Amino acid sequence: MKRYEKLAADIEEQVRQGVLPPGEQVPSVRQAAQQHRMSVGTVVRAYLLLESRGVIESRPQSGYFVRARPGEDAPALRVSQPSARPSAVDVSALVLSTLRSIRVHDAVPLGSPYPDSSGFPWRRISHYAGAIARSHAQWSLLDDLPPGNPELIRQIARRYLENGHPVDPHEVVITLGATEAINLCLQAVARPGDAIAVESPTFYAMLHAIERLGMRAVEVATDPVTGIDIDALERIIDAEGIAACMVMPNFQNPLGFQMPDAHKRRLVELLTARNVPVIENDVCGELYFGDAHPTSLKTYDTAGIVLHCASFSKTVTTAFRIGWALPGRYRGEVERLKFLNTLTTPSIPQRAIAEYLRNDGYGLHLRRVRRLYAQQARIMAAAVRRFFPPGTTLSQPLGGYVLWVQLPDGVDAMDMYHAALERRVTVAPGHMFAPGDTYRHCIRLNFSAPWSPRIEGAVQTLGQIAAHLLARRG
Amino acid sequence: MKRYEKLAADIEEQVRQGVLPPGEQVPSVRQAAQQHRMSVGTVVRAYLLLESRGVIESRPQSGYFVRARPGEDAPALRVSQPSARPSAVDVSALVLSTLRSIRVHDAVPLGSPYPDSSGFPWRRISHYAGAIARSHAQWSLLDDLPPGNPELIRQIARRYLENGHPVDPHEVVITLGATEAINLCLQAVARPGDAIAVESPTFYAMLHAIERLGMRAVEVATDPVTGIDIDALERIIDAEGIAACMVMPNFQNPLGFQMPDAHKRRLVELLTARNVPVIENDVCGELYFGDAHPTSLKTYDTAGIVLHCASFSKTVTTAFRIGWALPGRYRGEVERLKFLNTLTTPSIPQRAIAEYLRNDGYGLHLRRVRRLYAQQARIMAAAVRRFFPPGTTLSQPLGGYVLWVQLPDGVDAMDMYHAALERRVTVAPGHMFAPGDTYRHCIRLNFSAPWSPRIEGAVQTLGQIAAHLLARRG
Repeated sequence: MKRYEKLAADIEEQVRQGVLPPGEQVPSVRQAAQQHRMSVGTVVRAYLLLESRGVIESRPQSGYFVRARPGEDAPALRVSQPSARPSAVDVSALVLSTLRSIRVHDAVPLGSPYPDSSGFPWRRISHYAGAIARSHAQWSLLDDLPPGNPELIRQIARRYLENGHPVDPHEVVITLGATEAINLCLQAVARPGDAIAVESPTFYAMLHAIERLGMRAVEVATDPVTGIDIDALERIIDAEGIAACMVMPNFQNPLGFQMPDAHKRRLVELLTARNVPVIENDVCGELYFGDAHPTSLKTYDTAGIVLHCASFSKTVTTAFRIGWALPGRYRGEVERLKFLNTLTTPSIPQRAIAEYLRNDGYGLHLRRVRRLYAQQARIMAAAVRRFFPPGTTLSQPLGGYVLWVQLPDGVDAMDMYHAALERRVTVAPGHMFAPGDTYRHCIRLNFSAPWSPRIEGAVQTLGQIAAHLLARRG
Repeated sequence: MKRYEKLAADIEEQVRQGVLPPGEQVPSVRQAAQQHRMSVGTVVRAYLLLESRGVIESRPQSGYFVRARPGEDAPALRVSQPSARPSAVDVSALVLSTLRSIRVHDAVPLGSPYPDSSGFPWRRISHYAGAIARSHAQWSLLDDLPPGNPELIRQIARRYLENGHPVDPHEVVITLGATEAINLCLQAVARPGDAIAVESPTFYAMLHAIERLGMRAVEVATDPVTGIDIDALERIIDAEGIAACMVMPNFQNPLGFQMPDAHKRRLVELLTARNVPVIENDVCGELYFGDAHPTSLKTYDTAGIVLHCASFSKTVTTAFRIGWALPGRYRGEVERLKFLNTLTTPSIPQRAIAEYLRNDGYGLHLRRVRRLYAQQARIMAAAVRRFFPPGTTLSQPLGGYVLWVQLPDGVDAMDMYHAALERRVTVAPGHMFAPGDTYRHCIRLNFSAPWSPRIEGAVQTLGQIAAHLLARRG
């Protein structure tokens, strides 16, 4: 065994024994060389070997850290146990005030709902937008009437084909972001006062759509690894009746899970049998950490009951707000509502994104973003484990760019939110993710920005605040 | 009396006697010089004198025509007499299919709802949009959350101030065109099933909002010169009750009237007394042909019951879809609904228009557009009178860019629409402007494009079609 192999084996043994816990920083190369009286080159070779084995990981500008592995995150999040009573929804005021506070420019935006856009192909997109603006013909507003710009629709259909899940281009309706798509789909399938089943916790855009239309939300127990509890949903359907179901099976916001294929299939079968339409929010479907593009509920839909919604806001640019719906058998109604709601989606953004998809390396860009997010998910989780008080539990996202953090008993997320804001760090309080205050002890953290000492410092600050709030309670 | 003065007096006399009717072409300068054995220069001076007196007018590339004067358009349009029964609304399918057919690229777009954009400051706007795109910071999506970009809001408030009707900038909510503003305002004040009073005929965006929200429209008799019949409205309110009223007091689409100030004031007083909110569509307020910026219902509102909606789509660019609402006492609710409906209005268009308003000659641009539209309104009216069969009556628009044409008895606008489309001319059939087929004998013509032989030929084609349909009926 060579000297660097010996060093690597020693460190790996320390990790196995818990001497070096996940998230712990290992000594710097220089320190280790002094400690072990080795050359810097030998230590570097040892660390590279450990990194290739997945034992440690490097963080830009920070050094090497012990890597967390799936299953090591005990205690894990538990399945939610929400009340199954439908309730009126009124979260928008909280969400809007939170988003407003997040726009404080010099705060670390861990509470942001948007991906960090520094790695986005903004230069290309704005090049196309500028060129289209200059050549703008007066009839383009009419050209791009619902369902939307034909070339953009073609490119979206091509993307589904490349991902192995072809769709009919005639089904696509372009919308103002996924927000509008979700709104229109819900309005197409349900009436004011109707009960709508949602995951618990759920992404607040779902709650907003329910609130906007004066419907009621029924929270369904949701497993942080496998998603909505299909048995529980079945019981609710049979006992109470629901008009529709709204879920995010891929890299759910905030939990980050990927619903297993068997569950997706079973969910679609159940809803088909009960004739309940389901609105599928798939805005993070492209941001998987695994090897293959995930399936969606749409993949298993034979009866047209899945209204699939997605957008380019999480992968290309948030600024253009281009989304789409594949509304199954409700397509005609969704197109009609799109026309009534906002007439047409602005033309230049539609065309600029179509040009980008046609000409540039969208696939390449996505591969880079996925690799980055997968790495940063691990780094953020390790940092939270390192800095937060014991009793903190975490989600294990398999895609997307958010981490769900359950704080120790008695730490209130709104207290944390306000204290953090004073110290120029933002978090998304759990109150935003359910009609009641079920998640008042949870926060959501955004890990899309490239890791930096500033972000690490912000996580440390949050850990101190959590510890302080915990101590004050005791 | 000089020779040219004598010629001018002779022609004026012929016009007075009806030998040369309004819309008739006068002989070309060359022809007149031969007829009267005068020099070309003398005829030109005579024609310039007649033009300065408002007797004739020149049309680019077409020559001189006898000008129509207010009051000469007998027989005039009569006050509408709609049924006062609330009815469900379902015009969107017709409107969408009509708009789709209008996008035929080589058709003359007399049916278009949009202003011709060839004279719009597109180059400046796209310059700003490009510069903003290149300097785009990642947080701007959050910066421009509802109510919207602060600088744009400031510029809008400044514009109202310049027009002599100051508003509170804190009242402004930016929306995706006036379409979204109207939708949000209606949702803020009424519930599904409610009865909403509208003008008859009315702009179909009003009907779309009612349709989208599952409400019912009550058509109110509307005078083609003074607007909605306030007495009739009062009777409907007292007899049936309505949840809200939707009107377009300035340069109403399709009738083009400007409601007199006394009527505006009385309407607001009535609705204040009855506690009925009113949604005011003021998208054409800047496009007046007279000397002063018109007042709006907002001008007379003391109780906050006026929800005033407008946009830049008719004056700066249709492509950016930037509108706003001044929702009076419903402001909080409209802002909340904006957030729920489409989250936020795209940032770059908001900022580009704000830059344009701040730096460029918006006032100058508007003055040019107003002069052009006023001239083209006269030319289009004269052309219709010349080419359409007797029994045709016209609106007398005082602003905006559309002319309402009532065809002789028995000519159906849908027949005309289809026949015209075959000959590459589009019109907006009257069916789009009421819940029923009250206006099946009317069409709306767009006169915003600079007058040309091609447009004149299209109007002539329409006249031939109308005559043909009339003959077929007889």
